Amino acid sequence: MPEGEVVASPTRDDGGGMEEEAGASQVVTPWEVGSKDGGKINYDKLIVDFGCTKMDADTVSRIERLTGRPAHPFLRRNVFFAHRDFDKILDSYEKGEKFYLYTGRGPSSESLHLGHLVPFMFTKYLQDAFKVPLVIQLTDDEKFMWKDLKLDEARRLARENAKDIIACGFDVSRTFIFSDFEYVGGEFYRNMVRIAKCVTLNQVRGIFGFVGEDHIGKVMFPPIQAAPSFPTSFPHLFGDANQSKNIRCLIPCAIDQDPYFRMTRDAAPRLGFHKPALIESSFFPALQGESGKMSASDPNSAIYVSDNPKQIKDKINKSFSGGRDTAEEQRKFGANIEVDIAVKYLGFFLDDDKELARIKEEYRTGKLLTGEVKKILIDVLVAMVERHRRARAAVTEEMIDVFMAPRPLPHMFG
Amino acid sequence: MPEGEVVASPTRDDGGGMEEEAGASQVVTPWEVGSKDGGKINYDKLIVDFGCTKMDADTVSRIERLTGRPAHPFLRRNVFFAHRDFDKILDSYEKGEKFYLYTGRGPSSESLHLGHLVPFMFTKYLQDAFKVPLVIQLTDDEKFMWKDLKLDEARRLARENAKDIIACGFDVSRTFIFSDFEYVGGEFYRNMVRIAKCVTLNQVRGIFGFVGEDHIGKVMFPPIQAAPSFPTSFPHLFGDANQSKNIRCLIPCAIDQDPYFRMTRDAAPRLGFHKPALIESSFFPALQGESGKMSASDPNSAIYVSDNPKQIKDKINKSFSGGRDTAEEQRKFGANIEVDIAVKYLGFFLDDDKELARIKEEYRTGKLLTGEVKKILIDVLVAMVERHRRARAAVTEEMIDVFMAPRPLPHMFG
Repeated sequence: MPEGEVVASPTRDDGGGMEEEAGASQVVTPWEVGSKDGGKINYDKLIVDFGCTKMDADTVSRIERLTGRPAHPFLRRNVFFAHRDFDKILDSYEKGEKFYLYTGRGPSSESLHLGHLVPFMFTKYLQDAFKVPLVIQLTDDEKFMWKDLKLDEARRLARENAKDIIACGFDVSRTFIFSDFEYVGGEFYRNMVRIAKCVTLNQVRGIFGFVGEDHIGKVMFPPIQAAPSFPTSFPHLFGDANQSKNIRCLIPCAIDQDPYFRMTRDAAPRLGFHKPALIESSFFPALQGESGKMSASDPNSAIYVSDNPKQIKDKINKSFSGGRDTAEEQRKFGANIEVDIAVKYLGFFLDDDKELARIKEEYRTGKLLTGEVKKILIDVLVAMVERHRRARAAVTEEMIDVFMAPRPLPHMFG
Repeated sequence: MPEGEVVASPTRDDGGGMEEEAGASQVVTPWEVGSKDGGKINYDKLIVDFGCTKMDADTVSRIERLTGRPAHPFLRRNVFFAHRDFDKILDSYEKGEKFYLYTGRGPSSESLHLGHLVPFMFTKYLQDAFKVPLVIQLTDDEKFMWKDLKLDEARRLARENAKDIIACGFDVSRTFIFSDFEYVGGEFYRNMVRIAKCVTLNQVRGIFGFVGEDHIGKVMFPPIQAAPSFPTSFPHLFGDANQSKNIRCLIPCAIDQDPYFRMTRDAAPRLGFHKPALIESSFFPALQGESGKMSASDPNSAIYVSDNPKQIKDKINKSFSGGRDTAEEQRKFGANIEVDIAVKYLGFFLDDDKELARIKEEYRTGKLLTGEVKKILIDVLVAMVERHRRARAAVTEEMIDVFMAPRPLPHMFG
């Protein structure tokens, strides 16, 4: 599920590439994100190629008006830059109709990195702002199927990752976290089968690039990620089909997950559901820079929420810089802030718009040196990771059990 | 699952044929059973092509010795003519080790016909003789996926068919009946995923003949039919993996289901399970004769357990006969009992070996006329169907609930 970042992307090890829906120069699938010429992802082109809608300033203002609170920095700064039918969610919200949020994660590693946090931080904001229920899918089955991982290890990682997710501050009275290996069954399973009946083998080969040598677990997975888009998959939350069928779903995720939900949206009206709406983010850049080679296995390409202050400092200090080679040159010519990783990371995690603008301007014009900007970022990240570490340490096994128990939610809506 | 007959076979409507594992002249898959030259199925050739073992007289004697009761007519008369590793089941049974039975049915119609009863009658004999637990899978998901059937209708048919299955006399203290749409989840689902990870898309295309236009539900189904072959799929019966992993499974079914279990047997050792053993039947012939055109939709090609005596009489009287055109010719030349459907049906359902031998001999030599033999069969079938009808009428909703409740079985073994 929504990986939210580039650095940990390819879980795929065979050569099967997606058909070039993203255009000739870039490839964006749930398993592969890259640009053939080694350049940056062209997100405007992605919007056109995928057929989604650009998130515009009017929509951001409308969110502020409807929720009575300032838009999240990820909205103001266009991190969540695209959507599908998000306007319909707002229309129906304005009319007092219910919707729910759905996001998720493939639990492939012991610890999350900053990129993994992005969709969860944003989802928490949406949950708080709209006061809506949230379902979070942990696709331990996906990770077992794609990786050389024992099944029980995948289940263990799901629970470990649930701790990090809970540490993001979700409201337990509005949040249901589930692992596929635990939860699949009943109406969820029946929706999986309904969806599977709507999608041909040729279609999944086209959408996901599956090849004959792939095992059939991969082929059966897309309906599993699709099923939470339909409210009847959660009868303990929303009641039976008569009560729940019309509840809309909004999925915050990184845009590499779009193929799953294009497929889901095709199936939805045939099964009598609304098409799930999407709000989609760009990718979180690797420390080595946006055009650098991405590596899933290199722990130095990302900052993990388990990193200590020294590790964070060392990693940031080695990160790709848009500053000049010497202090003199930097004073004279200023930095290229378009490629500078410290600036990009501050864009994600420094909340204060004015302060961010000041740093960018002073860095661009040479008033600030690379080391100074990195120092600001290190302080921001050390504080953030420390806050996360403390929150995670407070998550008990009992809390995980409560979040993961299929149950009615006491304050689900409103 | 085990259809046990030819008449209701093709649920498949596209043209994708199986690779010709059964040899150039005959095709036997779960969806298609036929011989290209319009002739009979050559079962000896099927044994060689599939790589299973012929059921021999020594094994039948051994069953009698081990169970202390006469072999079922289906064994004595070679209806269950082939097996895989059945000798290993007997070896381990002799050593006092446990095994369980697994069979099933795809609930595609309101009522069962006689061919559908064959595997269940035989499974009941095995359960009684060996005193072992039995799981019966109702693949309502399969029928929903393969047929133009609403999901709730598939579930309803599963429950209707459960009545007919229970009416066969299974011991409720040793029998668990489940529908996939109700039961899939937990360790069953985890086994599905484990199995799916062991099988490539190329393999299922080779085994089942799936094509690109098929929906992906079809591709995900084989692991669903495979999962009950592994005892850990039923923790409420057999306990956790440590307790249950070594329990062997014996599957009575018609030989058209062999492809599913070839696939399952390949996966089993990789997942730490015994390969499931199989005991496989030939097909139940259509009323129009073994070489006649089979039709799923023609109710006149089979006798249903819901048919009344008049319908049974009319259908049998129209069945394909090996007798002569006139009484005079029959007296003079006798019947061809190799192709006579009445004789074949008596071979299935007339228990008395001597009486059967007498009828065949007198019919073959012209002492008995076609009408007389058909009359004998009609009496046998009317009694049998009436017995079934009464047993079915006595099956209450509560009894179905008990059979279908995931629960420990009080007298599971011995």
